[in-house]
Amino acid sequence: MKLQKIVLATTATVLTIGAGFAFAQFQKPEDAIKYRQSAFTVMGNSFSKIGAVVRGEAPFNKDEVAKNAAIVAMMSTLPWQAFGPGTEGGKAESDIWSNSAKFKAASERMQLAAVDLNKAAQSGDLDSIKKAFGATGASCKNCHDDFRKK
Amino acid sequence: MKLQKIVLATTATVLTIGAGFAFAQFQKPEDAIKYRQSAFTVMGNSFSKIGAVVRGEAPFNKDEVAKNAAIVAMMSTLPWQAFGPGTEGGKAESDIWSNSAKFKAASERMQLAAVDLNKAAQSGDLDSIKKAFGATGASCKNCHDDFRKK
Repeated sequence: MKLQKIVLATTATVLTIGAGFAFAQFQKPEDAIKYRQSAFTVMGNSFSKIGAVVRGEAPFNKDEVAKNAAIVAMMSTLPWQAFGPGTEGGKAESDIWSNSAKFKAASERMQLAAVDLNKAAQSGDLDSIKKAFGATGASCKNCHDDFRKK
Repeated sequence: MKLQKIVLATTATVLTIGAGFAFAQFQKPEDAIKYRQSAFTVMGNSFSKIGAVVRGEAPFNKDEVAKNAAIVAMMSTLPWQAFGPGTEGGKAESDIWSNSAKFKAASERMQLAAVDLNKAAQSGDLDSIKKAFGATGASCKNCHDDFRKK
C-alpha cells in the first residue's frame, strides 16, 4: 500500500516528500536558516571570484574559474531544502512561503543558469563564461528582488 | 625573472603564494571567518546525513550518499584559504597561526580522508562507506581537538 502510493505519486508529490524529508534534518528553524545562508555565502564567494575575472579585475585562470563554477553549480542545489515550512526568518521574505510556486520557479531558473555557467567554465571559453555569468547573475538578482529582504 | 622565480619555487612556496592570493579576496577578517564557518556548516550537514545512514538511522540511498560525499569532498578543500594572516577569531585557536605546519597537515589529512569517502560513496559499497566515514570523522576530530575552541 505504501509502495503503491509512492509509485502513484505525481512528480510534484515526490518533490514535496523529498523536501519534507530533507527538512527533517534540521532540528531547529535557526539551523535551517544558518544552513541556507552558509550555502549562499559559499556560492557567492565563488561567484564573485568568477565575476572579477569576467570584469577583467583578476587574471583568467581556466582551472580556477572551472573550480569556482563547479562550486557555484553544486551550491546552487543546496539552499532550497532549508526553506521548509516553519523556517521563516533571516533575510527571507514571507512570499517564499505564501508564493512558493514562484519561489520554486526562480530557484530552478538559477540552478539551470548555474549548470550553464559550469558548462561554459569547463569548456574554458571566456566569451561563453561571460555570457553565462551574466545570465546567472540576472537569475540571482531576479530572486533577490522578489524574495530577499533589503 | 618573475617567471623564473615561480618555476624555481618549491611546492611549499607555491602553496603559500596560492593561499596569499586567495586571501586577498576577503576584504575584512570577518568575511574570512564567515566564509570558513559557512563552508564547515555545509560540509557538516552533508557529513551528518551520511552519518545517519552509517548508524542505520536513515535508509541507505546510494545516490543521496554519493551526492553528500561529493559535497563533503568539495567543501573540504575550501575553508583553508580563509585562515590567512590577520583572520584570527571565531572558534579558531591561535595555534592555527602559531603552529601552521601542524594545522596544514591536519587539514590535508582531512581532505584526503574526504576524497576516500567520496570514492567509497561513488562505488556505493556500504561497508567501504562506513570505514571511510569513520576515518573522515577521526580526521575532523583530530583537527578540532587541537585547533577549535571548545
